[in-house]
Amino acid sequence: MPLTAKSKRLVETEIRQLIGAQEKAVRARSVEGVTSDCAPDVVSFDVVGGLQKVGTNERRERSEEWLSSFRGDISYELRDLSIIAADDVAFCHSLNHVNGIREDGQEIDMWWRATVCFQRIEGRWLIKHEHSSVPFDTGSGKAQLDLKP
Amino acid sequence: MPLTAKSKRLVETEIRQLIGAQEKAVRARSVEGVTSDCAPDVVSFDVVGGLQKVGTNERRERSEEWLSSFRGDISYELRDLSIIAADDVAFCHSLNHVNGIREDGQEIDMWWRATVCFQRIEGRWLIKHEHSSVPFDTGSGKAQLDLKP
Repeated sequence: MPLTAKSKRLVETEIRQLIGAQEKAVRARSVEGVTSDCAPDVVSFDVVGGLQKVGTNERRERSEEWLSSFRGDISYELRDLSIIAADDVAFCHSLNHVNGIREDGQEIDMWWRATVCFQRIEGRWLIKHEHSSVPFDTGSGKAQLDLKP
Repeated sequence: MPLTAKSKRLVETEIRQLIGAQEKAVRARSVEGVTSDCAPDVVSFDVVGGLQKVGTNERRERSEEWLSSFRGDISYELRDLSIIAADDVAFCHSLNHVNGIREDGQEIDMWWRATVCFQRIEGRWLIKHEHSSVPFDTGSGKAQLDLKP
């Protein structure tokens, strides 16, 4: 049976809190923070690094690589966040923006598309799947790293 | 309340049928077929062509552009399809493969990552969101169009 409007709002709030916790973890460059809410068999389609990564270990390695590539603070924001939730399955999508200085001194100022899919397992919401990407330009074959919403 | 195992299987079957219909529509290069199950406000993050497309009109234009870029038959398959479904919200992800000859004679033989998110609205499953992409190589900045699972 579909959720009542009240239950739906409650579930959306739970998902929003989880996304908020992920945001804080990225800003704090906390690998533990961005990994702790993942299901053991999480399937990640990431911006770089092959077609897919399966499981929390591969997810953690990639997060370590990414978060340690920055020097100092990261600015990180989500835009156009949309959440659709049922009682134990939910998904959200957003346009995400990171701004920071890499270890090699290069500034990263980049928007990408993010989809995160959740399942409530034994009462706890977990990230089962996530997909982050940028599109590419068919003429040059290059990833479009300078797009803005 | 979470679905019973039986209801879950039933819902998964419904989603699988919808995905199967999409597959057939791509192979038949039917723009109507790949568009008819989209929600009016579907948000598409596509392999190319900007950060996002919103609504069935933009989705249809992109499908027309893509499907008409091929000459003759398209081979199209989904691999590692995973479906997670609740009563009125569901998502799936897969690795998708297309093989065909473009109008300009170039062969396209490409794998990408696909995430599709569904909502049952007034009794009917609709695609609310989809995300298709390839990762890029950080060294060259190029989209990785030759990856294989």
